[in-house]
Amino acid sequence: MLIARNGIVDGAEAEVFGWVLSVREQKTVVFLIVYENRRQVQLVIKERKLMSRGIKQNASIWARGTIRTTDRAPNGFEIHVSSIKVLSRPKKLPPFNIMAAELPSLDLRLDYRALDLRRPKNIAIFTLRSKILQYFREYFVSKDFVEVQTPKIIATASEGGAALFPLMYYDKQAFLAQSPQLYKEELTMAFERVFEIGPIFRAEPSRTLKHLSEAISLDAEMAYLNNDEIMDVLEDMVKYVIRRVYERDRDLIERIRAPVIDLPDRFPRYTYSEVVKWINENVEELQEGEDLQAKHLEAFGGHVGGFYFIKEWPLKLKPFYIKPKDDFYSYSFDLMYRDTELSSGGERIHDPAMLRKGLKRVGLSPKGFKYHLLPYYYGMPPHGGFGFGVDRFMMVITGVDNIREVVLYPRDMRRLVP
Amino acid sequence: MLIARNGIVDGAEAEVFGWVLSVREQKTVVFLIVYENRRQVQLVIKERKLMSRGIKQNASIWARGTIRTTDRAPNGFEIHVSSIKVLSRPKKLPPFNIMAAELPSLDLRLDYRALDLRRPKNIAIFTLRSKILQYFREYFVSKDFVEVQTPKIIATASEGGAALFPLMYYDKQAFLAQSPQLYKEELTMAFERVFEIGPIFRAEPSRTLKHLSEAISLDAEMAYLNNDEIMDVLEDMVKYVIRRVYERDRDLIERIRAPVIDLPDRFPRYTYSEVVKWINENVEELQEGEDLQAKHLEAFGGHVGGFYFIKEWPLKLKPFYIKPKDDFYSYSFDLMYRDTELSSGGERIHDPAMLRKGLKRVGLSPKGFKYHLLPYYYGMPPHGGFGFGVDRFMMVITGVDNIREVVLYPRDMRRLVP
Repeated sequence: MLIARNGIVDGAEAEVFGWVLSVREQKTVVFLIVYENRRQVQLVIKERKLMSRGIKQNASIWARGTIRTTDRAPNGFEIHVSSIKVLSRPKKLPPFNIMAAELPSLDLRLDYRALDLRRPKNIAIFTLRSKILQYFREYFVSKDFVEVQTPKIIATASEGGAALFPLMYYDKQAFLAQSPQLYKEELTMAFERVFEIGPIFRAEPSRTLKHLSEAISLDAEMAYLNNDEIMDVLEDMVKYVIRRVYERDRDLIERIRAPVIDLPDRFPRYTYSEVVKWINENVEELQEGEDLQAKHLEAFGGHVGGFYFIKEWPLKLKPFYIKPKDDFYSYSFDLMYRDTELSSGGERIHDPAMLRKGLKRVGLSPKGFKYHLLPYYYGMPPHGGFGFGVDRFMMVITGVDNIREVVLYPRDMRRLVP
Repeated sequence: MLIARNGIVDGAEAEVFGWVLSVREQKTVVFLIVYENRRQVQLVIKERKLMSRGIKQNASIWARGTIRTTDRAPNGFEIHVSSIKVLSRPKKLPPFNIMAAELPSLDLRLDYRALDLRRPKNIAIFTLRSKILQYFREYFVSKDFVEVQTPKIIATASEGGAALFPLMYYDKQAFLAQSPQLYKEELTMAFERVFEIGPIFRAEPSRTLKHLSEAISLDAEMAYLNNDEIMDVLEDMVKYVIRRVYERDRDLIERIRAPVIDLPDRFPRYTYSEVVKWINENVEELQEGEDLQAKHLEAFGGHVGGFYFIKEWPLKLKPFYIKPKDDFYSYSFDLMYRDTELSSGGERIHDPAMLRKGLKRVGLSPKGFKYHLLPYYYGMPPHGGFGFGVDRFMMVITGVDNIREVVLYPRDMRRLVP
């Protein structure tokens, strides 16, 4: 924390608490770059007795001195130190240098994650992540959504399937929520427009660069909108956040060396059938009704470029709560960035008899969903929404190719620590 | 969603999507109160053919009509309906009337929670809760904290003890996080000031009106501040949020019939020893070092009134990471509102040798905390912070006496559904 009397002006007194990113020793002067609350400050030490204190990278320090404005220091000023104290001294040689050009392995960095997070690129990534979280909420609050917090310990699988972490809840079997799906749907009944940003848990055996066992999902659900109107909201949200970042956080984008994303006027919207047709013409034979595979999305995503929607998927590829368009297709969509799926959404079934039919379609028992079905008998509005992967979005914005780089303490099949 | 052409002016055309809170039928006119996105709108139906549609409480509807400004309707206007459609009709008689003066049991209401949330008091409580979440974040963002998201699936108990939900993480044993404690502490190393609002999980066998098995915790952690400075931040945050509510959300406070909270200039700060002395003089004999029990806090809380701190607790009553003041006391505090504990916090140990000693003090093995100890060898700054119960704070603000009333889908020993 920098405390500058009279502000950042030449000659003002200042105090700084921070940690040492780098030490550059010259014959008559030592330069320290100190991070104080995620901003770099240059300290200049000229007194011989202060120079001999043996201040090293990673030490936490307090210093006092005089501000000198100068172009050669980060942020246009440095502090000429008159007094300095080490508050916490490194007790071992660190496993890697946080300033090194060559990175140690991701595994080693994750073992020492708190130290790894001191790398300037990481400071920038997670400062940006925090800002982006505020921008998402700003968007929803401005559109009159209510923020909700739904339970993460649940009795029934919302999507069915095996990808659940089971736990003992006192004397009962329970699961970790794969998504807030059923809760956010129910909540449109009283609140009309809801959103939540929180953890979701998937016990999938994936070992890809895009999957985690614990991820942060942004969920939104709205009454009275149709499939294309829901896509409008999602597209508007993505554009709002990206524009906000480029307006306000250019410095962070530059420090991360993130690619600048072109925002088209409108994200193209392809039906699933149009994509299948393109795959048949350009990649390989694919039957209408088959799921799109990684290689198909790579080809089609490369062809389209940035953001695009694939809508009206076959019903059989979608969960029980998705609204059928006809016997074969559904009112659903995915938002893609090149070959990365960022979001899935659509219109939902709001009629209880149809919802029971939906459950049976995918082989789930309406009995297991007794409590979820209850409110549907009392005027559940037509509704729809989407789930959006915050970590995946951070990959797109920062341009990193491994999702573990944008999550503080990633969880996957192999990693449960620190 | 209300779409009013030319705004809310007499004679303007409007469309409304919403659900019916109440129906009042007179001979020549039907009045509907409709909730559209958490606001009440009065619809007036005078055409006989529209009156005969049999529109009931809880139906979701669409209507079109003409705005008439009037003092007798909520928000100063009503809509004279020219066209109305039912979008979702109740298919069963509801288990309770959402407008009834007499409430059905909490258990019944929680079984039908999505319907119960349509009660006007609940609409107001959860609208306010969403606003309060924004105010908390506003406060921290304005103080230059970074928002973090830490894992909820963890390998080691942060507080030790039995109150953990175990789960199978692929082929490993894991637990649900009781708090972000160890992570937020580590994160001060790179980010200096961090906060998180997220779920915590406690397998305590409590059946009180103030405990849940899954709760929302607000956690903040800061480098370089001492115990009293950390209390300053917490006190400042509480005051900021309460003032914001009274500035902006008077209407919600009135609809909830919440008591208005007096904010003193400064929350009194008592040492644990002062409180023990008072208990000895006014309630019963209590030894220095014993924990304060519910009856002690009721008596002392009633004596003090609103908010107050109890600080410098005996070390043996606090977790391993709390910084000792001497052999007996610690740099710790609780924030209380009358007899309700809202927050616990304090200075933490930042020296690795001392932290190992702390672990041994409470009978935990440093081996189990291997990954947490790692960063402490590389210049961990002095730091401290607090955890703050968002649900408990909502009890205080709304004046309800059961925590289940301010949580959408509460989880306790007996309840895992819906």
